Amino acid sequence: MAPLAPRSGDAVFANVERVNAELFTLTYGAIVRQLLTDLEEVEEVNKQLDQMGYNIGIRLIDEFLAKSNVSRCVDFKETADVIAKVGLKMFLGVTASVTNWDVDGTSCSLVLEDNPLVDFVELPDTCQGLYYCNILSGVIRGALEMVSMKTEVTWVRDMLRGDDAYELRLKLLKQVPEEYPYKDDE
Amino acid sequence: MAPLAPRSGDAVFANVERVNAELFTLTYGAIVRQLLTDLEEVEEVNKQLDQMGYNIGIRLIDEFLAKSNVSRCVDFKETADVIAKVGLKMFLGVTASVTNWDVDGTSCSLVLEDNPLVDFVELPDTCQGLYYCNILSGVIRGALEMVSMKTEVTWVRDMLRGDDAYELRLKLLKQVPEEYPYKDDE
Repeated sequence: MAPLAPRSGDAVFANVERVNAELFTLTYGAIVRQLLTDLEEVEEVNKQLDQMGYNIGIRLIDEFLAKSNVSRCVDFKETADVIAKVGLKMFLGVTASVTNWDVDGTSCSLVLEDNPLVDFVELPDTCQGLYYCNILSGVIRGALEMVSMKTEVTWVRDMLRGDDAYELRLKLLKQVPEEYPYKDDE
Repeated sequence: MAPLAPRSGDAVFANVERVNAELFTLTYGAIVRQLLTDLEEVEEVNKQLDQMGYNIGIRLIDEFLAKSNVSRCVDFKETADVIAKVGLKMFLGVTASVTNWDVDGTSCSLVLEDNPLVDFVELPDTCQGLYYCNILSGVIRGALEMVSMKTEVTWVRDMLRGDDAYELRLKLLKQVPEEYPYKDDE
């Protein structure tokens, strides 16, 4: 376990600055409500939440790398484990299980054990196409892009839509080799 | 001290569910950016942030009363102290000092010792009229209204606008007596 996660999610979470989860949940709810009012189309709200998440993810990755002591993951499997056990814990205080790997080891699911974004949330009938937690898929996509992994992150199960769990599907599209500022033969 | 705050802000904060402060800061930044894009007028953004905060405050007060064990405050002075030492701590993890009381004991200032909403924030020249943290004044106004105090809450100093501190002015406009569901002579 040690090489996988140099600091456990619990240890990292205990040492970062935090705010009250209910304040966060209500603030996030205010964003979604605002977007529904301004954009009208649920599909546009989904896109905007994903984009907001992406913009957050490309910045949060720095805090993650600085605080977690996680170094380069050897493969996408390790990356998924680190997101599930360290990343989600560090930022949201929850963990996920990693399941449903495809044979290539490039697609898997994160099944969230708890989801602080949705406390007290019920969707009215007019919002049935909404992916309420789409900010989260955007955050993961943005963060992974900053460590050279282009991914597609989508919700396949969503309790607000009547499913029995929150399940995010992660698909690795392309792994960009890291570029060094020097050449080996220099 | 004990009757003022049956549980200290630290004790309450240690026992509530929390999320990472940087995630909250970036998420809040995403709201402000979205409002600036959608509403265009900075004055409208200020109003909308205040309204969002109000809507959050009228719900957060329940969590505050449930978790803090704070009972009825005897006067507005005690109320201001509880906000500064317990409320802000419980939700944002910071405290404030209460200063500049007027002679009536109905107006005071909360000077924040730290402000997690503004980490990494710089306002571009086009946003100089923005009260970036206006959600916070709305939260306090909303929460107080639910305990029968009508208040006006405004920023008088704001470091994002070049001041040397974050100072919120609280003014008690009207204290509505609590109504009981029965009359004394029944």
